[in-house]
Amino acid sequence: MRYAARVEYDGTGFAGFQVQPGARTVQGELEAALHRVRGGGEAIRVTGAGRTDAGVHAAGQVIAFTWSGRRMSVRELGRAIGAVLPPDVAIGRLRRVPPGFSPRRAAVRREYRYTIWNGPRSPLRERYALGIRERLDVTAMDAAAQVLVGRHDYSAFGGRHRQPIRTLSGIRVRRTGRTITVDVVGDAFLRQMVRSIVAALLRVGRGTATASDLEAALRSPGRAFSGDVAPPHGLCLRRVVLRDPTGDA
Amino acid sequence: MRYAARVEYDGTGFAGFQVQPGARTVQGELEAALHRVRGGGEAIRVTGAGRTDAGVHAAGQVIAFTWSGRRMSVRELGRAIGAVLPPDVAIGRLRRVPPGFSPRRAAVRREYRYTIWNGPRSPLRERYALGIRERLDVTAMDAAAQVLVGRHDYSAFGGRHRQPIRTLSGIRVRRTGRTITVDVVGDAFLRQMVRSIVAALLRVGRGTATASDLEAALRSPGRAFSGDVAPPHGLCLRRVVLRDPTGDA
Repeated sequence: MRYAARVEYDGTGFAGFQVQPGARTVQGELEAALHRVRGGGEAIRVTGAGRTDAGVHAAGQVIAFTWSGRRMSVRELGRAIGAVLPPDVAIGRLRRVPPGFSPRRAAVRREYRYTIWNGPRSPLRERYALGIRERLDVTAMDAAAQVLVGRHDYSAFGGRHRQPIRTLSGIRVRRTGRTITVDVVGDAFLRQMVRSIVAALLRVGRGTATASDLEAALRSPGRAFSGDVAPPHGLCLRRVVLRDPTGDA
Repeated sequence: MRYAARVEYDGTGFAGFQVQPGARTVQGELEAALHRVRGGGEAIRVTGAGRTDAGVHAAGQVIAFTWSGRRMSVRELGRAIGAVLPPDVAIGRLRRVPPGFSPRRAAVRREYRYTIWNGPRSPLRERYALGIRERLDVTAMDAAAQVLVGRHDYSAFGGRHRQPIRTLSGIRVRRTGRTITVDVVGDAFLRQMVRSIVAALLRVGRGTATASDLEAALRSPGRAFSGDVAPPHGLCLRRVVLRDPTGDA
Protein backbone atom coordinates (compact mmCIF):
# COMPACT_ATOMS: atom_id res chain seq x y z
CA MET A 1 0.00 0.00 0.00
CA ARG A 2 1.56 3.28 -1.08
CA TYR A 3 0.72 6.58 0.59
CA ALA A 4 1.53 10.25 0.04
CA ALA A 5 1.18 13.14 2.49
CA ARG A 6 2.03 16.77 2.97
CA VAL A 7 4.85 17.32 5.46
CA GLU A 8 5.71 20.48 7.37
CA TYR A 9 9.00 21.07 9.18
CA ASP A 10 11.07 23.68 10.92
CA GLY A 11 14.39 23.20 9.12
CA THR A 12 16.52 24.79 11.87
CA GLY A 13 17.49 21.53 13.51
CA PHE A 14 17.98 19.50 10.32
CA ALA A 15 20.90 18.87 7.97
CA GLY A 16 18.29 19.04 5.17
CA PHE A 17 15.60 16.71 3.89
CA GLN A 18 17.72 13.93 2.46
CA VAL A 19 19.22 11.13 4.58
CA GLN A 20 22.94 11.53 5.27
CA PRO A 21 24.99 9.27 7.50
CA GLY A 22 25.50 10.72 10.97
CA ALA A 23 23.22 13.72 10.44
CA ARG A 24 19.68 14.51 11.59
CA THR A 25 17.48 14.77 8.49
CA VAL A 26 13.75 15.05 7.82
CA GLN A 27 13.75 11.91 5.70
CA GLY A 28 15.62 10.11 8.48
CA GLU A 29 13.06 11.16 11.11
CA LEU A 30 10.15 10.10 8.90
CA GLU A 31 11.75 6.74 8.16
CA ALA A 32 12.48 6.21 11.86
CA ALA A 33 8.84 7.05 12.73
CA LEU A 34 7.51 4.54 10.16
CA HIS A 35 9.93 1.91 11.38
CA ARG A 36 8.74 2.46 14.93
CA VAL A 37 5.06 2.30 14.00
CA ARG A 38 5.67 -0.97 12.16
CA GLY A 39 7.53 -2.31 15.16
CA GLY A 40 10.94 -2.93 13.54
CA GLY A 41 11.98 -4.92 10.50
CA GLU A 42 13.47 -3.67 7.25
CA ALA A 43 13.98 0.03 6.62
CA ILE A 44 11.01 1.82 5.02
CA ARG A 45 12.13 4.25 2.36
CA VAL A 46 10.51 7.72 2.27
CA THR A 47 10.84 9.85 -0.85
CA GLY A 48 10.14 13.57 -1.12
CA ALA A 49 9.21 16.00 -3.88
CA GLY A 50 12.14 18.31 -3.13
CA ARG A 51 15.50 17.97 -1.40
CA THR A 52 15.49 21.04 0.78
CA ASP A 53 18.93 22.03 2.10
CA ALA A 54 20.06 22.25 5.71
CA GLY A 55 18.10 24.94 7.55
CA VAL A 56 15.41 25.36 4.88
CA HIS A 57 11.82 25.03 6.12
CA ALA A 58 8.80 23.45 4.48
CA ALA A 59 5.09 23.98 4.97
CA GLY A 60 4.12 21.89 1.94
CA GLN A 61 6.73 19.24 1.20
CA VAL A 62 5.14 16.09 -0.25
CA ILE A 63 6.42 12.63 0.67
CA ALA A 64 5.49 9.07 -0.23
CA PHE A 65 6.21 5.63 1.21
CA THR A 66 5.10 2.04 0.84
CA TRP A 67 3.55 0.57 3.95
CA SER A 68 4.41 -3.06 4.52
CA GLY A 69 3.30 -3.28 8.16
CA ARG A 70 0.06 -4.57 9.57
CA ARG A 71 -3.25 -3.48 8.02
CA MET A 72 -4.39 -0.21 9.50
CA SER A 73 -6.93 2.33 8.32
CA VAL A 74 -5.42 5.40 6.63
CA ARG A 75 -6.53 7.49 9.58
CA GLU A 76 -5.08 5.13 12.17
CA LEU A 77 -1.74 4.90 10.34
CA GLY A 78 -1.55 8.71 9.96
CA ARG A 79 -2.20 9.23 13.66
CA ALA A 80 0.34 6.60 14.67
CA ILE A 81 3.05 8.24 12.57
CA GLY A 82 2.16 11.74 13.85
CA ALA A 83 2.36 10.54 17.43
CA VAL A 84 5.99 9.40 17.16
CA LEU A 85 7.40 12.25 15.06
CA PRO A 86 9.56 14.87 16.84
CA PRO A 87 8.01 18.33 17.46
CA ASP A 88 9.75 19.93 14.47
CA VAL A 89 8.16 17.64 11.82
CA ALA A 90 4.44 17.10 11.21
CA ILE A 91 2.63 14.94 8.70
CA GLY A 92 -0.71 15.81 7.09
CA ARG A 93 -3.52 13.52 6.01
CA LEU A 94 -2.35 10.35 4.23
CA ARG A 95 -3.67 9.59 0.74
CA ARG A 96 -3.56 6.32 -1.16
CA VAL A 97 -1.41 6.60 -4.30
CA PRO A 98 -0.58 4.09 -7.08
CA PRO A 99 2.32 1.64 -6.43
CA GLY A 100 4.98 3.43 -8.48
CA PHE A 101 4.08 6.93 -7.31
CA SER A 102 7.04 9.31 -6.97
CA PRO A 103 6.39 12.79 -5.49
CA ARG A 104 9.46 14.12 -7.29
CA ARG A 105 8.25 12.96 -10.72
CA ALA A 106 4.60 13.84 -10.01
CA ALA A 107 5.46 17.40 -8.97
CA VAL A 108 4.62 19.85 -11.75
CA ARG A 109 5.01 23.03 -9.73
CA ARG A 110 6.95 24.06 -6.64
CA GLU A 111 6.27 27.25 -4.70
CA TYR A 112 8.97 28.74 -2.50
CA ARG A 113 8.84 31.83 -0.32
CA TYR A 114 11.90 33.69 0.91
CA THR A 115 11.16 36.10 3.78
CA ILE A 116 13.26 39.16 4.64
CA TRP A 117 12.82 41.24 7.81
CA ASN A 118 13.93 44.68 6.66
CA GLY A 119 14.16 46.38 10.04
CA PRO A 120 16.14 46.54 13.29
CA ARG A 121 17.32 43.26 14.77
CA SER A 122 14.34 41.16 15.87
CA PRO A 123 14.97 37.73 17.41
CA LEU A 124 11.29 36.78 17.15
CA ARG A 125 11.10 37.55 13.43
CA GLU A 126 14.55 36.43 12.39
CA ARG A 127 14.10 32.77 13.11
CA TYR A 128 12.16 32.43 9.85
CA ALA A 129 13.37 35.53 8.00
CA LEU A 130 16.70 37.02 6.93
CA GLY A 131 17.33 40.29 8.78
CA ILE A 132 18.57 43.13 6.56
CA ARG A 133 19.09 46.51 8.24
CA GLU A 134 19.48 48.88 5.28
CA ARG A 135 16.27 49.66 3.45
CA LEU A 136 15.92 47.60 0.27
CA ASP A 137 14.40 48.93 -2.93
CA VAL A 138 11.60 46.42 -3.41
CA THR A 139 10.31 48.02 -6.61
CA ALA A 140 13.72 47.54 -8.25
CA MET A 141 13.91 43.98 -6.91
CA ASP A 142 10.51 43.05 -8.29
CA ALA A 143 11.24 44.64 -11.68
CA ALA A 144 14.63 42.88 -11.96
CA ALA A 145 13.08 39.55 -10.92
CA GLN A 146 10.85 39.59 -14.02
CA VAL A 147 13.98 39.19 -16.17
CA LEU A 148 14.43 35.72 -14.66
CA VAL A 149 10.91 34.50 -15.44
CA GLY A 150 10.49 32.10 -18.36
CA ARG A 151 12.30 29.05 -19.73
CA HIS A 152 16.06 29.45 -19.35
CA ASP A 153 19.36 27.80 -18.58
CA TYR A 154 19.69 28.82 -14.91
CA SER A 155 23.19 27.47 -14.30
CA ALA A 156 24.44 31.01 -13.46
CA PHE A 157 22.11 30.71 -10.43
CA GLY A 158 22.50 27.11 -9.47
CA GLY A 159 25.86 25.56 -10.24
CA ARG A 160 26.66 22.87 -12.79
CA HIS A 161 23.95 20.46 -13.74
CA ARG A 162 23.58 18.12 -16.71
CA GLN A 163 20.22 19.56 -17.65
CA PRO A 164 20.05 23.14 -16.31
CA ILE A 165 16.96 24.29 -18.23
CA ARG A 166 14.03 25.12 -15.95
CA THR A 167 10.81 27.09 -16.25
CA LEU A 168 10.09 29.81 -13.73
CA SER A 169 6.45 30.78 -14.07
CA GLY A 170 6.65 33.72 -11.73
CA ILE A 171 8.63 35.71 -9.16
CA ARG A 172 7.00 38.34 -7.03
CA VAL A 173 8.76 40.62 -4.54
CA ARG A 174 6.44 42.47 -2.15
CA ARG A 175 6.80 44.63 0.94
CA THR A 176 4.27 44.67 3.80
CA GLY A 177 5.60 47.10 6.38
CA ARG A 178 9.10 45.87 7.19
CA THR A 179 8.52 42.36 5.90
CA ILE A 180 9.57 41.57 2.33
CA THR A 181 8.53 38.32 0.67
CA VAL A 182 10.04 36.85 -2.47
CA ASP A 183 7.69 34.25 -3.97
CA VAL A 184 9.27 32.02 -6.58
CA VAL A 185 7.21 29.51 -8.54
CA GLY A 186 8.58 27.06 -11.08
CA ASP A 187 8.37 23.54 -12.42
CA ALA A 188 11.60 22.46 -10.76
CA PHE A 189 14.75 24.08 -9.38
CA LEU A 190 18.50 23.54 -9.55
CA ARG A 191 20.31 23.08 -6.25
CA GLN A 192 20.42 26.37 -4.26
CA MET A 193 18.70 28.13 -7.18
CA VAL A 194 16.11 30.02 -5.11
CA ARG A 195 18.73 31.16 -2.62
CA SER A 196 21.08 32.37 -5.37
CA ILE A 197 18.25 34.22 -7.09
CA VAL A 198 17.41 35.87 -3.74
CA ALA A 199 21.10 36.80 -3.24
CA ALA A 200 21.08 38.42 -6.70
CA LEU A 201 17.86 40.29 -5.92
CA LEU A 202 19.35 41.52 -2.63
CA ARG A 203 22.17 43.08 -4.68
CA VAL A 204 19.55 44.81 -6.79
CA GLY A 205 17.70 45.97 -3.65
CA ARG A 206 20.94 47.48 -2.32
CA GLY A 207 21.74 49.11 -5.65
CA THR A 208 24.87 47.07 -6.38
CA ALA A 209 23.38 45.16 -9.33
CA THR A 210 20.77 45.90 -11.97
CA ALA A 211 18.18 44.03 -13.98
CA SER A 212 20.63 44.12 -16.94
CA ASP A 213 23.25 42.33 -14.84
CA LEU A 214 20.74 39.54 -14.20
CA GLU A 215 19.87 39.44 -17.88
CA ALA A 216 23.55 39.18 -18.82
CA ALA A 217 24.01 36.35 -16.30
CA LEU A 218 21.16 34.36 -17.88
CA ARG A 219 22.89 34.79 -21.27
CA SER A 220 26.24 33.47 -19.97
CA PRO A 221 25.16 30.37 -18.04
CA GLY A 222 28.71 29.01 -17.87
CA ARG A 223 29.65 31.58 -15.22
CA ALA A 224 28.07 31.95 -11.75
CA PHE A 225 26.30 35.29 -11.28
CA SER A 226 28.09 36.00 -8.00
CA GLY A 227 28.40 32.72 -6.16
CA ASP A 228 26.37 34.23 -3.27
CA VAL A 229 23.49 32.28 -1.80
CA ALA A 230 21.06 33.79 0.70
CA PRO A 231 21.06 32.01 4.10
CA PRO A 232 18.70 29.02 4.39
CA HIS A 233 16.57 30.13 7.36
CA GLY A 234 14.56 32.65 5.29
CA LEU A 235 13.47 29.98 2.79
CA CYS A 236 10.34 27.84 2.93
CA LEU A 237 8.98 25.27 0.45
CA ARG A 238 5.36 26.30 0.74
CA ARG A 239 3.60 24.08 -1.73
CA VAL A 240 4.13 21.30 -4.23
CA VAL A 241 1.48 20.86 -6.89
CA LEU A 242 1.23 17.31 -8.22
CA ARG A 243 0.17 16.13 -11.65
CA ASP A 244 -2.21 13.58 -10.16
CA PRO A 245 -4.67 14.76 -7.54
CA THR A 246 -3.15 12.36 -5.02
CA GLY A 247 -1.28 14.52 -2.53
CA ASP A 248 -3.06 17.00 -0.28
CA ALA A 249 -0.86 19.80 -1.69
CA MET B 1 24.49 57.99 33.28
CA ARG B 2 21.27 55.95 33.35
CA TYR B 3 19.69 54.49 30.21
CA ALA B 4 16.48 52.68 29.34
CA ALA B 5 15.72 50.64 26.21
CA ARG B 6 13.17 48.31 24.72
CA VAL B 7 14.35 44.69 24.61
CA GLU B 8 13.07 41.85 22.44
CA TYR B 9 13.81 38.18 23.04
CA ASP B 10 12.88 34.70 21.97
CA GLY B 11 12.25 33.12 25.38
CA THR B 12 12.72 29.52 24.21
CA GLY B 13 16.34 29.29 25.31
CA PHE B 14 15.97 31.19 28.60
CA ALA B 15 15.09 30.25 32.17
CA GLY B 16 13.17 33.55 32.25
CA PHE B 17 14.13 37.20 32.49
CA GLN B 18 15.50 37.31 36.01
CA VAL B 19 19.04 36.23 36.91
CA GLN B 20 19.26 32.82 38.59
CA PRO B 21 22.46 31.04 39.50
CA GLY B 22 23.47 28.42 36.96
CA ALA B 23 20.72 29.29 34.46
CA ARG B 24 20.72 31.22 31.20
CA THR B 25 18.54 34.31 31.67
CA VAL B 26 17.82 37.46 29.67
CA GLN B 27 18.99 39.72 32.48
CA GLY B 28 22.17 37.64 32.75
CA GLU B 29 22.89 38.00 29.00
CA LEU B 30 22.28 41.76 29.10
CA GLU B 31 24.53 42.18 32.15
CA ALA B 32 27.25 40.07 30.53
CA ALA B 33 27.02 42.19 27.35
CA LEU B 34 27.37 45.45 29.32
CA HIS B 35 30.27 44.01 31.27
CA ARG B 36 31.99 43.04 28.05
CA VAL B 37 31.45 46.45 26.45
CA ARG B 38 32.90 48.13 29.52
CA GLY B 39 35.88 45.78 29.42
CA GLY B 40 35.44 44.12 32.82
CA GLY B 41 35.17 45.55 36.31
CA GLU B 42 32.20 45.38 38.69
CA ALA B 43 28.91 43.82 37.64
CA ILE B 44 26.42 46.18 35.98
CA ARG B 45 22.89 45.58 37.22
CA VAL B 46 20.07 45.53 34.64
CA THR B 47 16.47 45.92 35.81
CA GLY B 48 13.36 45.10 33.78
CA ALA B 49 9.73 46.19 33.78
CA GLY B 50 8.46 42.61 34.03
CA ARG B 51 9.89 39.28 35.16
CA THR B 52 8.81 37.04 32.33
CA ASP B 53 8.94 33.32 33.16
CA ALA B 54 11.02 30.63 31.48
CA GLY B 55 9.99 30.25 27.84
CA VAL B 56 7.95 33.46 27.67
CA HIS B 57 8.87 35.82 24.82
CA ALA B 58 9.03 39.61 24.76
CA ALA B 59 8.81 42.09 21.92
CA GLY B 60 8.56 45.12 24.21
CA GLN B 61 10.25 44.44 27.55
CA VAL B 62 11.80 47.64 28.98
CA ILE B 63 15.12 47.56 30.81
CA ALA B 64 17.35 50.14 32.50
CA PHE B 65 20.97 50.24 33.66
CA THR B 66 23.53 52.74 34.90
CA TRP B 67 26.57 53.07 32.67
CA SER B 68 29.78 53.56 34.55
CA GLY B 69 32.18 52.82 31.69
CA ARG B 70 33.98 55.23 29.43
CA ARG B 71 32.08 58.12 27.85
CA MET B 72 30.39 57.03 24.67
CA SER B 73 27.60 58.56 22.65
CA VAL B 74 24.17 56.96 23.19
CA ARG B 75 24.32 55.62 19.66
CA GLU B 76 27.81 54.19 20.03
CA LEU B 77 26.94 52.50 23.34
CA GLY B 78 23.73 51.03 21.90
CA ARG B 79 25.59 49.58 18.92
CA ALA B 80 28.35 48.17 21.10
CA ILE B 81 25.82 46.35 23.31
CA GLY B 82 23.83 45.09 20.30
CA ALA B 83 27.01 43.71 18.75
CA VAL B 84 27.82 41.43 21.69
CA LEU B 85 24.31 40.17 22.53
CA PRO B 86 23.42 36.60 21.49
CA PRO B 87 21.04 36.13 18.51
CA ASP B 88 17.97 35.55 20.72
CA VAL B 89 18.11 38.96 22.47
CA ALA B 90 18.05 42.39 20.83
CA ILE B 91 18.15 45.86 22.33
CA GLY B 92 16.38 48.92 20.89
CA ARG B 93 17.46 52.54 20.90
CA LEU B 94 18.90 53.72 24.26
CA ARG B 95 17.28 56.71 25.98
CA ARG B 96 18.72 58.80 28.81
CA VAL B 97 16.61 58.50 31.97
CA PRO B 98 16.88 60.14 35.42
CA PRO B 99 19.29 58.53 37.94
CA GLY B 100 16.68 56.70 40.05
CA PHE B 101 14.61 55.46 37.09
CA SER B 102 13.02 52.02 37.59
CA PRO B 103 11.20 50.46 34.61
CA ARG B 104 9.11 48.37 36.99
CA ARG B 105 7.86 51.40 38.95
CA ALA B 106 7.51 53.59 35.86
CA ALA B 107 5.38 51.00 34.04
CA VAL B 108 1.72 51.99 34.09
CA ARG B 109 0.50 49.47 31.57
CA ARG B 110 1.63 46.07 30.33
CA GLU B 111 0.32 44.43 27.17
CA TYR B 112 0.57 40.67 26.75
CA ARG B 113 -0.52 38.51 23.86
CA TYR B 114 -1.15 34.79 24.06
CA THR B 115 -1.28 33.06 20.66
CA ILE B 116 -3.10 29.80 19.97
CA TRP B 117 -2.81 27.81 16.74
CA ASN B 118 -6.19 26.11 16.51
CA GLY B 119 -5.44 23.68 13.72
CA PRO B 120 -3.52 20.51 12.82
CA ARG B 121 0.01 20.19 14.17
CA SER B 122 2.27 22.86 12.62
CA PRO B 123 5.93 22.99 13.67
CA LEU B 124 6.41 26.38 11.99
CA ARG B 125 3.51 28.00 13.87
CA GLU B 126 3.83 26.20 17.18
CA ARG B 127 7.16 27.68 18.16
CA TYR B 128 5.36 30.87 19.18
CA ALA B 129 1.82 29.57 19.64
CA LEU B 130 0.08 26.86 21.65
CA GLY B 131 -1.34 24.19 19.34
CA ILE B 132 -4.91 23.15 20.17
CA ARG B 133 -6.49 20.59 17.83
CA GLU B 134 -10.19 20.74 18.80
CA ARG B 135 -12.02 23.82 17.60
CA LEU B 136 -12.37 26.42 20.36
CA ASP B 137 -15.45 28.59 20.82
CA VAL B 138 -13.84 32.03 20.57
CA THR B 139 -17.11 33.91 21.02
CA ALA B 140 -17.65 32.20 24.39
CA MET B 141 -14.01 32.84 25.37
CA ASP B 142 -14.22 36.53 24.58
CA ALA B 143 -17.54 36.92 26.41
CA ALA B 144 -16.26 35.10 29.50
CA ALA B 145 -13.05 37.15 29.49
CA GLN B 146 -15.05 40.33 30.03
CA VAL B 147 -15.97 39.05 33.51
CA LEU B 148 -12.30 39.36 34.48
CA VAL B 149 -11.92 42.99 33.36
CA GLY B 150 -11.84 45.64 36.08
CA ARG B 151 -10.23 46.06 39.50
CA HIS B 152 -10.22 42.77 41.39
CA ASP B 153 -8.36 40.47 43.72
CA TYR B 154 -6.88 38.07 41.14
CA SER B 155 -5.36 35.55 43.54
CA ALA B 156 -7.58 32.78 42.11
CA PHE B 157 -5.54 33.29 38.91
CA GLY B 158 -2.10 33.98 40.26
CA GLY B 159 -1.30 32.31 43.54
CA ARG B 160 -0.74 33.96 46.91
CA HIS B 161 0.51 37.50 46.96
CA ARG B 162 0.50 40.09 49.75
CA GLN B 163 -1.30 42.61 47.57
CA PRO B 164 -3.28 40.71 44.94
CA ILE B 165 -5.44 43.58 43.68
CA ARG B 166 -4.77 44.49 40.06
CA THR B 167 -6.59 46.38 37.34
CA LEU B 168 -7.19 44.67 34.01
CA SER B 169 -8.23 47.31 31.52
CA GLY B 170 -9.09 44.87 28.76
CA ILE B 171 -9.03 41.32 27.44
CA ARG B 172 -9.83 40.55 23.86
CA VAL B 173 -10.05 37.09 22.27
CA ARG B 174 -10.07 37.06 18.49
CA ARG B 175 -9.87 34.48 15.71
CA THR B 176 -8.19 35.09 12.37
CA GLY B 177 -8.49 31.86 10.39
CA ARG B 178 -6.94 29.19 12.63
CA THR B 179 -4.98 31.64 14.75
CA ILE B 180 -6.53 32.83 18.02
CA THR B 181 -5.01 35.72 19.96
CA VAL B 182 -5.77 36.60 23.57
CA ASP B 183 -4.71 40.19 24.29
CA VAL B 184 -4.54 41.07 27.96
CA VAL B 185 -3.82 44.63 29.10
CA GLY B 186 -3.42 45.73 32.70
CA ASP B 187 -1.47 47.91 35.10
CA ALA B 188 0.47 44.99 36.55
CA PHE B 189 0.13 41.23 36.86
CA LEU B 190 0.55 38.57 39.52
CA ARG B 191 2.99 35.80 38.77
CA GLN B 192 1.63 33.45 36.03
CA MET B 193 -1.59 35.46 35.99
CA VAL B 194 -1.86 35.79 32.19
CA ARG B 195 -1.16 32.10 31.71
CA SER B 196 -3.74 31.06 34.31
CA ILE B 197 -6.33 33.37 32.76
CA VAL B 198 -5.59 31.78 29.37
CA ALA B 199 -5.92 28.28 30.88
CA ALA B 200 -9.32 29.28 32.29
CA LEU B 201 -10.41 30.71 28.92
CA LEU B 202 -9.30 27.50 27.19
CA ARG B 203 -11.72 25.62 29.48
CA VAL B 204 -14.44 28.00 28.35
CA GLY B 205 -13.45 27.52 24.70
CA ARG B 206 -13.75 23.74 25.14
CA GLY B 207 -17.05 24.03 26.95
CA THR B 208 -15.84 22.71 30.31
CA ALA B 209 -16.19 26.04 32.15
CA THR B 210 -18.48 29.05 31.84
CA ALA B 211 -18.33 32.80 32.42
CA SER B 212 -20.14 32.23 35.73
CA ASP B 213 -17.37 29.88 36.88
CA LEU B 214 -14.85 32.66 36.25
CA GLU B 215 -17.07 35.14 38.09
CA ALA B 216 -17.36 32.78 41.08
CA ALA B 217 -13.57 32.34 41.12
CA LEU B 218 -13.04 36.11 41.28
CA ARG B 219 -15.40 36.20 44.27
CA SER B 220 -13.47 33.46 46.12
CA PRO B 221 -9.89 34.62 45.74
CA GLY B 222 -8.63 32.27 48.47
CA ARG B 223 -9.01 29.27 46.14
CA ALA B 224 -7.17 28.75 42.82
CA PHE B 225 -9.54 28.59 39.84
CA SER B 226 -8.06 25.36 38.54
CA GLY B 227 -4.32 25.54 39.13
CA ASP B 228 -3.78 25.18 35.35
CA VAL B 229 -1.41 27.52 33.57
CA ALA B 230 -1.13 27.65 29.79
CA PRO B 231 2.37 26.74 28.50
CA PRO B 232 4.84 29.65 28.28
CA HIS B 233 5.75 29.48 24.58
CA GLY B 234 2.45 31.06 23.43
CA LEU B 235 2.97 34.15 25.59
CA CYS B 236 4.67 37.40 24.60
CA LEU B 237 5.11 40.64 26.55
CA ARG B 238 4.39 42.96 23.65
CA ARG B 239 4.57 46.40 25.16
CA VAL B 240 5.21 48.25 28.40
CA VAL B 241 3.85 51.78 28.64
CA LEU B 242 5.82 54.02 31.01
CA ARG B 243 4.55 56.93 33.09
CA ASP B 244 7.42 59.14 31.91
CA PRO B 245 8.04 59.39 28.19
CA THR B 246 11.52 57.99 28.67
CA GLY B 247 11.46 54.47 27.23
CA ASP B 248 10.85 53.83 23.56
CA ALA B 249 7.84 51.70 24.47
